[in-house]
Amino acid sequence: MNRGLLIVVSGASGTGKGTVCKKILADLPAVAYSISATTRAPRPGEVDGKEYYFISRDEFKAWIDDGKFLEFAEVYGNYYGTPLNKIEERLKRGEDILLEIDVQGALNVKRKMPEGIYIFLLPPSLEELRRRIEGRGTETQESLKRRLANAVAEIQIGREYDYAVVNDSVDNAAAQIEAILAAERCKVARNLDKFNLEEAF
Amino acid sequence: MNRGLLIVVSGASGTGKGTVCKKILADLPAVAYSISATTRAPRPGEVDGKEYYFISRDEFKAWIDDGKFLEFAEVYGNYYGTPLNKIEERLKRGEDILLEIDVQGALNVKRKMPEGIYIFLLPPSLEELRRRIEGRGTETQESLKRRLANAVAEIQIGREYDYAVVNDSVDNAAAQIEAILAAERCKVARNLDKFNLEEAF
Repeated sequence: MNRGLLIVVSGASGTGKGTVCKKILADLPAVAYSISATTRAPRPGEVDGKEYYFISRDEFKAWIDDGKFLEFAEVYGNYYGTPLNKIEERLKRGEDILLEIDVQGALNVKRKMPEGIYIFLLPPSLEELRRRIEGRGTETQESLKRRLANAVAEIQIGREYDYAVVNDSVDNAAAQIEAILAAERCKVARNLDKFNLEEAF
Repeated sequence: MNRGLLIVVSGASGTGKGTVCKKILADLPAVAYSISATTRAPRPGEVDGKEYYFISRDEFKAWIDDGKFLEFAEVYGNYYGTPLNKIEERLKRGEDILLEIDVQGALNVKRKMPEGIYIFLLPPSLEELRRRIEGRGTETQESLKRRLANAVAEIQIGREYDYAVVNDSVDNAAAQIEAILAAERCKVARNLDKFNLEEAF
């Protein structure tokens, strides 16, 4: 049984990670979402155990102490974390896990699981990035400014990733990421058994 | 101007390199064939300057002396070579060049141009490989035997490549290679300018 792919999709605030990941999951039923835990309040329509595990700060700290997180980070005053045990189980079973995560979190994951596929989403332009952050409508003017400056700094970190995909449209970006996954499945390093003639043929 | 991709498609005799490459070229008009020179006689229907530059042994040796070859090799008593100057010109112009080449030749090219994308075609099975080599109908029993033994040895060399693609059908294999090319275009290492905000945005 081949180990599954760990697919890490990241990018600065407002680059559209969430929408692109939803499209990939809809297109590729074999790929499953990793669900994060967070201390932030649910947005309208968000359901506990679906978009996130919504937990209290005390609970979050207990999970940290129990070593349940692959990584965790504080972002704008809230905690976000990725439960390691669930991901590891699934990868071993050969499942492909999609991890949608902020830039800081992705770099932490990369240190622990360098065999993952690290994909950085870029906005088509800074103007478009500003429009998207404003359009979300959940930000004060102060936090909007901070988010935009932060996004510009985060984009520089994209150099640490394996792949960069410009999110000019959800369909294009998802198609490019799906091509990346198809290509990664062809990597010789993941397919050495194919060259063992006794076993492969 | 981004440098073009050098795409090297190789594989043991009878794995169907030629058919798969023709499909890729038909699908992707931006990708151009690299034309090899050879001293072997044209097969029925082959045209000089299209499938190959068909040249004499003396001419071939003169090209070697002039340093015109990226690589050359003797295969089953005939010489094959890849004109370096033409490929280099095209890559600089940003063109993507597809190089269909035997296993020995591909490893030579990899030493000189490690930035290329090295793709190894695998037969779906040894039985299928035998059927394909026989089906070609251009082989004596002696040379068939030699080709098959050689193919098995060559498949081991596939471990030196970046990607392995099983040629179970021309459409599948071509689609996988096209995904590899799309993925390679997203590689951060090829897209560092995207992270230079002053220039990119």
